[in-house]
Amino acid sequence: MTTNPAAQAVAAPQNGQSNGQAAGAAQRAGAGGQPVPVAEAVIDPRKFRRALGNFATGVTVMTASADGRKVGVTANSFNSVSLDPPLILWSIDKRSGSYPVFAQASHFAVNVLAVGQIALSNQFARPGDDRYAGVPHRSGVGGSILLENTAASFQCEKHQIIDGGDHWIMIGKVVAYDDNGRDPLLYHQGAYSMVLPHPELEEREEVNAPRTEFHSRLVDNYFYLMSQAMRAHQEACQPERRQGGWSAGESRVLLVLDADQPVDLATVVHQAVMPAREVEPVLRLLRERGLVRQEGSGFVLTPEGHRQAQAVWDMARRQQDRVFAPFSDEEKALFADMLKRVIVRC
Amino acid sequence: MTTNPAAQAVAAPQNGQSNGQAAGAAQRAGAGGQPVPVAEAVIDPRKFRRALGNFATGVTVMTASADGRKVGVTANSFNSVSLDPPLILWSIDKRSGSYPVFAQASHFAVNVLAVGQIALSNQFARPGDDRYAGVPHRSGVGGSILLENTAASFQCEKHQIIDGGDHWIMIGKVVAYDDNGRDPLLYHQGAYSMVLPHPELEEREEVNAPRTEFHSRLVDNYFYLMSQAMRAHQEACQPERRQGGWSAGESRVLLVLDADQPVDLATVVHQAVMPAREVEPVLRLLRERGLVRQEGSGFVLTPEGHRQAQAVWDMARRQQDRVFAPFSDEEKALFADMLKRVIVRC
Repeated sequence: MTTNPAAQAVAAPQNGQSNGQAAGAAQRAGAGGQPVPVAEAVIDPRKFRRALGNFATGVTVMTASADGRKVGVTANSFNSVSLDPPLILWSIDKRSGSYPVFAQASHFAVNVLAVGQIALSNQFARPGDDRYAGVPHRSGVGGSILLENTAASFQCEKHQIIDGGDHWIMIGKVVAYDDNGRDPLLYHQGAYSMVLPHPELEEREEVNAPRTEFHSRLVDNYFYLMSQAMRAHQEACQPERRQGGWSAGESRVLLVLDADQPVDLATVVHQAVMPAREVEPVLRLLRERGLVRQEGSGFVLTPEGHRQAQAVWDMARRQQDRVFAPFSDEEKALFADMLKRVIVRC
Repeated sequence: MTTNPAAQAVAAPQNGQSNGQAAGAAQRAGAGGQPVPVAEAVIDPRKFRRALGNFATGVTVMTASADGRKVGVTANSFNSVSLDPPLILWSIDKRSGSYPVFAQASHFAVNVLAVGQIALSNQFARPGDDRYAGVPHRSGVGGSILLENTAASFQCEKHQIIDGGDHWIMIGKVVAYDDNGRDPLLYHQGAYSMVLPHPELEEREEVNAPRTEFHSRLVDNYFYLMSQAMRAHQEACQPERRQGGWSAGESRVLLVLDADQPVDLATVVHQAVMPAREVEPVLRLLRERGLVRQEGSGFVLTPEGHRQAQAVWDMARRQQDRVFAPFSDEEKALFADMLKRVIVRC
């Protein structure tokens, strides 16, 4: 997520809590009718960035070339602006080594990554100049570069560059595009995610008593039932998860490190399904809080770290035990077995 | 999705296909090194908007007030720009009746909607001035308005307004925020969606042979197994779905209408889990293609419409039959029963 500010500060320690000072000042101001100037200092960049992470986005790789230098950067700041003329925008860190090429190039391309393209996202977020190594791609308009198997791509003529604080806002006019319709890769709370169709969640008592033809056909579809179960589960777990105080990315790192052996950075990145640039600040935070220490090239939890990780596992276990209490051990074993065979057979 | 251009044109008929003319021109240009001017006419707004829908985003409600008039608009064009100073942006249709209030107000607030807030998203995307009717809210800084139970909110001082074609790009400087950490509502391919954590999808043969402590604990978690099964399913179905040529939103409308009785608009909106503004262009498209006709205040499929809907159901059924072939009817019945009880018990 190189080019989004949400990726440039380290994660903040507390989740699920209001940014008390600033919000308090703002609310007092709002209630009184007249806005009160709020000091710059109340915006803690770590907490601000963490709050921004609640807005889920797709992931793109922006590409351009000029004077024989090809650049590509991972960005989640993409959005559409206008249909007539067709304009889109994204923003790039003013300190980015790739910016001079984007500034010089006449065109750039937006590659919207598909759900299976985590490796590409990581590769184009990595420091270094060999980002295209091993990446199948073809030429786009004006030296822009199109990656293969994306969800969509937009080839743009550079339209305008606007000052956006520590970033440049790049506005492009779309001159060509491809719509591949693949499921997209998502980015949320510091971790990679994917899209789950939002099921029409009927009132609980109606699950076994469908009223419409549409619904009565859906309840025969196991994948639809699974998506409803996932949604019900997420909603039920939410209050408890927030009490835990960890963002999605933070709890994933904690769980991956809950092992007897030191875990190296590459393994954390892979198993936590997060960008390396998100894992590093989380590790720093966990070290600051005395939960993680480095051992050789790996990371291990301290006793307190293991205790926190155990609390996260316990929370998941309690929820699962509560939901699956009515089932016999044989039924539960069959359920898990069927799910594993679905994973293998799909 | 009032303020995003992706919501302002009608949906285009074909999915999963390259925008041949424009892309072809662009690729020829790119291959030759020199960009060739591409005529405006090659961007079909319907197809362009449909391609933009591949980039998944969260959903926000933007609020402000001035001269005693409170406005609120649903937008998915939000993104972060800068950490220092803390800047965010979004864009609003120049024709929006709410724009004069945003232009006059000194501040606005960004309300990032949580997964359960579809009704709020729809309410603030609806024409009319009573958008706050029945909506719990409180005052924010400078007349902005904060909705309850959102995933996050950002209170902003108006920083700059930039011309963005048929939209104004609104840049705000964040002066206060709340981070509630709730799961977000998503918007993708014309339909509401939600976030599914991206599971580390091991090689198929490793599902039953976990190698790490992290993984061996995860495979005992039914919800993790379900998320892996959902991902495997989505990836397996993708090629077939694209052959069908329907976007997520289009196929949902088709399936909801596949009934013996006419279905009214409100029911389609509810059951397809889509914004009304997205359902209407889909219905128009389906009528143009002879798949839907109006009957009184409801909509019914034509025989050809039923045939297309049946093809979508059949596709899902074939996939399910293939994946679940090894299981006995008793096992399948137990699986479905367990899922339904999970939904009820969560």
